[in-house]
Amino acid sequence: MKHLISAGDLGRDDALLILDTAEELARVSERSIKKLPTLRGRTVVNLFFEDSTRTRISFEAAAKRLSADVINFSAKGSSVSKGESLKDTALTLEAMGADAVVIRHSASGAPHRLATWVRGSVVNAGDGTHEHPTQALLDAFSMRRRMGRLEGLKVAVVGDVLHSRVARSNVLLLSTLGAEVTLVAPPTLLPVAVENWPCQVSYDLDAVLPKSDVVMMLRVQLERQNAAFFPSAREYSRRYGLDRQRFAKLHDDAIVMHPGPMNRGMEISAEVADSPRSTIVEQVGNGVTVRMAVLYLLLGGAIGGEVK
Amino acid sequence: MKHLISAGDLGRDDALLILDTAEELARVSERSIKKLPTLRGRTVVNLFFEDSTRTRISFEAAAKRLSADVINFSAKGSSVSKGESLKDTALTLEAMGADAVVIRHSASGAPHRLATWVRGSVVNAGDGTHEHPTQALLDAFSMRRRMGRLEGLKVAVVGDVLHSRVARSNVLLLSTLGAEVTLVAPPTLLPVAVENWPCQVSYDLDAVLPKSDVVMMLRVQLERQNAAFFPSAREYSRRYGLDRQRFAKLHDDAIVMHPGPMNRGMEISAEVADSPRSTIVEQVGNGVTVRMAVLYLLLGGAIGGEVK
Amino acid sequence: MKHLISAGDLGRDDALLILDTAEELARVSERSIKKLPTLRGRTVVNLFFEDSTRTRISFEAAAKRLSADVINFSAKGSSVSKGESLKDTALTLEAMGADAVVIRHSASGAPHRLATWVRGSVVNAGDGTHEHPTQALLDAFSMRRRMGRLEGLKVAVVGDVLHSRVARSNVLLLSTLGAEVTLVAPPTLLPVAVENWPCQVSYDLDAVLPKSDVVMMLRVQLERQNAAFFPSAREYSRRYGLDRQRFAKLHDDAIVMHPGPMNRGMEISAEVADSPRSTIVEQVGNGVTVRMAVLYLLLGGAIGGEVK
Repeated sequence: MKHLISAGDLGRDDALLILDTAEELARVSERSIKKLPTLRGRTVVNLFFEDSTRTRISFEAAAKRLSADVINFSAKGSSVSKGESLKDTALTLEAMGADAVVIRHSASGAPHRLATWVRGSVVNAGDGTHEHPTQALLDAFSMRRRMGRLEGLKVAVVGDVLHSRVARSNVLLLSTLGAEVTLVAPPTLLPVAVENWPCQVSYDLDAVLPKSDVVMMLRVQLERQNAAFFPSAREYSRRYGLDRQRFAKLHDDAIVMHPGPMNRGMEISAEVADSPRSTIVEQVGNGVTVRMAVLYLLLGGAIGGEVK
Repeated sequence: MKHLISAGDLGRDDALLILDTAEELARVSERSIKKLPTLRGRTVVNLFFEDSTRTRISFEAAAKRLSADVINFSAKGSSVSKGESLKDTALTLEAMGADAVVIRHSASGAPHRLATWVRGSVVNAGDGTHEHPTQALLDAFSMRRRMGRLEGLKVAVVGDVLHSRVARSNVLLLSTLGAEVTLVAPPTLLPVAVENWPCQVSYDLDAVLPKSDVVMMLRVQLERQNAAFFPSAREYSRRYGLDRQRFAKLHDDAIVMHPGPMNRGMEISAEVADSPRSTIVEQVGNGVTVRMAVLYLLLGGAIGGEVK
Repeated sequence: MKHLISAGDLGRDDALLILDTAEELARVSERSIKKLPTLRGRTVVNLFFEDSTRTRISFEAAAKRLSADVINFSAKGSSVSKGESLKDTALTLEAMGADAVVIRHSASGAPHRLATWVRGSVVNAGDGTHEHPTQALLDAFSMRRRMGRLEGLKVAVVGDVLHSRVARSNVLLLSTLGAEVTLVAPPTLLPVAVENWPCQVSYDLDAVLPKSDVVMMLRVQLERQNAAFFPSAREYSRRYGLDRQRFAKLHDDAIVMHPGPMNRGMEISAEVADSPRSTIVEQVGNGVTVRMAVLYLLLGGAIGGEVK
């Protein structure tokens, strides 16, 4: 494995290797060993064409815990804004010694193109509405830690699927790992191509909830909604929000997930978000662990001595 | 001591422990040992909702000299601007492994609220017009280094007290440490609550100067002045600026301080700012040392071996 | 050598020392030793008053490979925007423990003034249209690696000389090192002072190319052009752009350089830029190596053990 561009590229074995490596790293961290020397001398560049402080910090923390040097490159005010092409930016970063480039870009496919130009590793940290594979990996990792398995797990992914790279990456990864995904959304918030995705589709959240082991609420991306298709926030919340009443329809072991940042009171109520059966904060911590596993496996270091 | 939110929370013993620890760190640094391994593997997050490059860099330098990893989080362009609450931001940072969060926020009280939500340490790096405790600590440290004592020291704090968190934190800390503070300002630049502060108040700088051991000039925050209450810059300078004539009224051992950045020619003349009895540059260096002491004490490391 | 302000300040011996040190560092790096402990505990501050992600990252990578701590200071939103003077900013950074300040500023001469105020080292990372000495050093290093020598080398520097600090620094350094430089540009894109520079001037690219060993194409700084003097992009490209036809006029060993970022299709065609005789990507990598050499020599570390 050299790049991580799409959750769809991951075979079952690769995906499980990442999750198992993350599990090992989580155990090391629980023994209060916070920093490993694995990637000392390696350089990870965060190349962010869109603002995303959460994702950038998560990768930065992951790389630093493996002792890599991290360089943050925000496209704003850079030579990119002087018209430099993505290719020239990529070659520049590689020439400067980047061993891995973590890229966030508004254009679907940008990480794929990047990977054709550089010799180092490319990690997709979100491209347009296309994919966000490390998010899917951390979600799968979080589910497996809570539920003990992924095979046969019934997962509902609810809300603004149309604008969600998280939904798409989750569907691809979870189906590879044997979970059964149902997308739940109003018809106007589903992409046309959803017919070909390996999942079920439903418009009726109340019908799906009792049968679900995991309910993943998606962020409503208000800034991207087309007024003609999006109901009012109140109407959306009434039909697709997860509040206390709906939460009660879940079976007792079911969990609630959200990739964050949340619109509390919109797609999820504060009460549900803060419930012990919500994994939202765990997901963030697992994000660092899973990204450590990805960087470790891509850059091919060997887990060696420990920094005391 | 787990958090540092307010100078008023510090008892005499805690305050002296911080100053004494800073003194020890300063001696280590004078032996040309620039980096200590004390906080290796720990992560300090600078969570800045207001621009403040000076303060951010000072904390960053302090954390790095203790070998901590530093992650800078500027609220601009972050999920905060997508409407994420301070609480969710805080929980996210903690889940990512932040051992300490250094927060600068325009709302008085934000660091206090933050501290109720996270398990890690919170350091207030300035909240609204409320407090800036590490500034007060570095000021006290600078005074003690120059004057040899704090007990009984006569300190004049001069200028725009109304908009100054520095003034408030200094009054609280210095009174705890036995110094006698007099605030000097035009009535329109004093907060109403000043009556309850443990200090004297005067409107007459020329009368206060001859009796002072330390004169701390405050930055006039021009951008926050109400035109109805603020005299012209020239008038302000004439009545409350520290120029050569006024400086001559100080006794020979008295020192001049300023938290920076200065408006040269407004609250302080260039000649006074650059005088050998000005501690302005020392204060900056002492700021890094004092912040090292604070991070060291809060994160509970033990001063161990030295990095060669 | 304490500062690096101007390529013109470098005598032949100093310049060769930097190039030879870079050569040694390049060999260390080729043995897969990516990080040296030389500057551990030292702090390098990148003080950037103009956006320049490429240059900032290059210095950041250089400093980190030498194990220095790096602090990025962007003047935007800093106390500089509250009216702090360059001098006070400089004294502040020094007091915080900066061992070297790398400065990029829109005003010619700013690094020189900075050097009069601080005790640490100052490195000019580009000041106005004046100088960019590390760019000239990396260009000379790249030429010597490809051509085996600098003495007697015939170098054509082509294009927007008027707005180029790169051109000026190259002319000064290359003439010191014995190369023969010819500037090629339309009369309106040459500075008046060029008469006094140690180089030839020509308006006719086609005449100069066959006699050149190295052709360095400059970036057209479109954003700075005066409409009255700048021909259309198409016209400029026709007369001063390096396309395949012109490239064919070079002798077989001649190389093509560009400091980046390129306007592909304007001053250089994509085909030429990507040719094996183009050193454009190498220049970027060499930039990190040369900046390592500069920081190493200025900060006076000794190459010691290696980080494994």
